Amino acid sequence: MSQYPHATIRIELGPGKRLGPGKVRLLELVGSTGSISAAAREMAMSYRRAWLLIEELNEAFGKPVVQATAGGAGGGGTRVTPHGQSVIDAFRAIESESARLIADKLGQFPSLSVRAARDTR
Amino acid sequence: MSQYPHATIRIELGPGKRLGPGKVRLLELVGSTGSISAAAREMAMSYRRAWLLIEELNEAFGKPVVQATAGGAGGGGTRVTPHGQSVIDAFRAIESESARLIADKLGQFPSLSVRAARDTR
Repeated sequence: MSQYPHATIRIELGPGKRLGPGKVRLLELVGSTGSISAAAREMAMSYRRAWLLIEELNEAFGKPVVQATAGGAGGGGTRVTPHGQSVIDAFRAIESESARLIADKLGQFPSLSVRAARDTR
Repeated sequence: MSQYPHATIRIELGPGKRLGPGKVRLLELVGSTGSISAAAREMAMSYRRAWLLIEELNEAFGKPVVQATAGGAGGGGTRVTPHGQSVIDAFRAIESESARLIADKLGQFPSLSVRAARDTR
């Protein structure tokens, strides 16, 4: 979303364990590229950072959100597990439904929406 | 909120301009303590960091969320402006209404809620 103001949500899974748009986007990109390094590149982050974020998710949920795939000519890659996909789907479903509700409410607060829309610095 | 999982919201006011529970809490503490340094202390952050977060809000909204007060015997303090209070109120209103909606939805996803509730590491 590039329109302002808009709301984003984070799901606090436990102390210090947070699921937000960044990790979900990373997971989606692992799914579409078949590679943690390609996903990291698309998000302009290091491979190491991407790997750590995915490890956080594995730990928070207690089972893997991605898994290695056996390679063909180009070596193996990484794919999203069915569990990882259900995490993505749940987050996106919650996000899209709450986005509608929050968008209505943002409109009720001109001091937020008007000032923010004008502020393009 | 200390129960898991729960959702938190952030309002994206513009590129790199974000209003979330941390800044709102800081602003509330400036209001209740009458001091940026006391508010910073309660949040276990440096005065400098608190000051920078407040400056971010001032810039994002284009007008001050806090202002200096003339001092008595103990010197001056800081209070939240009416505009700052409207920012707090708007955020808390959006948050509490969306929290109810999101709580219902989290319950629909056992893979999220059950695993997270068990995960106390």
